[in-house]
Amino acid sequence: MKTNFIHTYVSVDCVVFGFDDEQLNILLVQRNNIDENDPKRLKLPGSLIFDNEDVDDAASRVLYELTGIRRMTLKQFRCFAAPDRASNPQDIKWLDQAYKPDIDRLITVAYFSLCKIGRKLNVSNITKYKAVEWCPLSELPDMPFDHNKIVEASLIDIRRWIETDPVIVFDLLPQKFTISQLHRLYESIYNKKIDIRNFHKKVATMTYVLPLAEKQLGVSHRAARYYKFDKKAYNRLKTSI
Amino acid sequence: MKTNFIHTYVSVDCVVFGFDDEQLNILLVQRNNIDENDPKRLKLPGSLIFDNEDVDDAASRVLYELTGIRRMTLKQFRCFAAPDRASNPQDIKWLDQAYKPDIDRLITVAYFSLCKIGRKLNVSNITKYKAVEWCPLSELPDMPFDHNKIVEASLIDIRRWIETDPVIVFDLLPQKFTISQLHRLYESIYNKKIDIRNFHKKVATMTYVLPLAEKQLGVSHRAARYYKFDKKAYNRLKTSI
Repeated sequence: MKTNFIHTYVSVDCVVFGFDDEQLNILLVQRNNIDENDPKRLKLPGSLIFDNEDVDDAASRVLYELTGIRRMTLKQFRCFAAPDRASNPQDIKWLDQAYKPDIDRLITVAYFSLCKIGRKLNVSNITKYKAVEWCPLSELPDMPFDHNKIVEASLIDIRRWIETDPVIVFDLLPQKFTISQLHRLYESIYNKKIDIRNFHKKVATMTYVLPLAEKQLGVSHRAARYYKFDKKAYNRLKTSI
Repeated sequence: MKTNFIHTYVSVDCVVFGFDDEQLNILLVQRNNIDENDPKRLKLPGSLIFDNEDVDDAASRVLYELTGIRRMTLKQFRCFAAPDRASNPQDIKWLDQAYKPDIDRLITVAYFSLCKIGRKLNVSNITKYKAVEWCPLSELPDMPFDHNKIVEASLIDIRRWIETDPVIVFDLLPQKFTISQLHRLYESIYNKKIDIRNFHKKVATMTYVLPLAEKQLGVSHRAARYYKFDKKAYNRLKTSI
C-alpha cells in the first residue's frame, strides 16, 4: 500500500474586482493578528470548504458572507496546489488559530468575480475578519500564501474571457457610462494604454453598446454622452454566431 | 474548533483528444476488474497526486506514464468536487484496491490535451491499467465517477479556448492537411454542421494557414490541396494584437 498520496484540506479564494471610474480594485479582508508582532495582513477572501460542500458552493458562500449578495457571477479559473504554498510560519500559525492545527498542506480553488463598486457591502455576517476594503490593483500589499500570484493569474484569465465574452466587462460599470469610462476600464484590465481612436472603432463594432439621449451634467469639459449595455441585443448576437 | 472541514485526497484526470480524420476520439484506460461481476470499465486516465506534488506536475506525470510523451500541452480547466462524485460502491471498491482503503471523498482537477492521433503511444510504463485505447467521442461508454461529465465540460472549455487561441486546433492535425479535414475537425469540436462556404471564408482570414504546392495523391475524387499551419506567422499575429 502506497502511503504518500496527498491528504489535504481544500479552500476557495475569491478575487473580487470592482472599478471606481479610475482603476480596478480588489476586495480584501484583514485577517486577525496572530500575535503582537504580526502586522496587519490583508488577504483575499476565502474559506476552507466543508466536508459536504462543493467548491462552487463554497465560493458563493464566502462571497455571500462578505457582501450579502447571493447571486454574484463567479468564475472558477484555477486550482493552486504548489506543495509549499502554505509553508510560511505566520500563515501556518494563522491557519492554526482560524481553522485547526496541523494543516500541513492546503490546496485552493480560485475564483474571480466582477461587481459594481458602488454596490453596498453588507459585511454584518463577518466574524472571521476585522475589516473588508477595496484595494487598488496597483497598490496591492504583499499578501499571505500565494494570493498575489492568484491575483496575477486571475487577470490573465479575465482578459482571455473578455475576448470571447465581453459581457462581464459591463458587470463592472454603472447602468449608464461614458465611452471614456469604458476606455479606462479596458486600460485597467489590460494594464496598458489603448489608443482612444482605435477604441472608438472597437466600440462601434459592439452593437450592444447603445447611446442614450442623456449626457453628463455639471462637468467642466464638454459633456460626454452616456451609453448603456443592452443585454438582449448581446444575447441575440451570441446565439446567432 | 470546527471539525467539519473537508480533508481529502486529490486527483488529476486528463481528457486527451485525438482526431482521426473523421471524428474526435478520447484516450481511455481500462481499469482492473474489481471482482468477477465487474464489467470492463473504461475511464479517463488519472491519478491521485503525491504529497509533494503540484497538480500540474501530476497531470504531466500521468500523461507521460500513459503515452511516453514528456511535453504535451495540458490545460487545466476545472476542479470537480461534488461531495458524492466518488460514492458509487464499485468506484469506492476500485479506489480501495488501486490506492488505499477508506477514501470517502475525492476531488479531482481536470485537464485537457490535444494530440495527433498518429502519435505512437508508448504504454510500456503502464502497470495500473490493462489497456489504453482511443474511443470515439460519439461512442463514449458510461464511465466511473463523473468522468462523462468531465468530458462534456472539457468540450465547452475547448470551444472557448479556440475562439481566442485557435493554435491548439492544429495540434490535432497532421503536418499537412486539407481544408476538408480542418472542416471536419471544427464540426467535431462544435458537434454541429458548419456551412462549408462560410468555413472557407473563415479559413481565408487565418493568415497562418498556408497552401502548399502539394496535392492529395491516389484519391478517386478531385485531389485537394494540402495546407500547413505556420506557427511563426501565427505568433507574429498574436503579438501584434
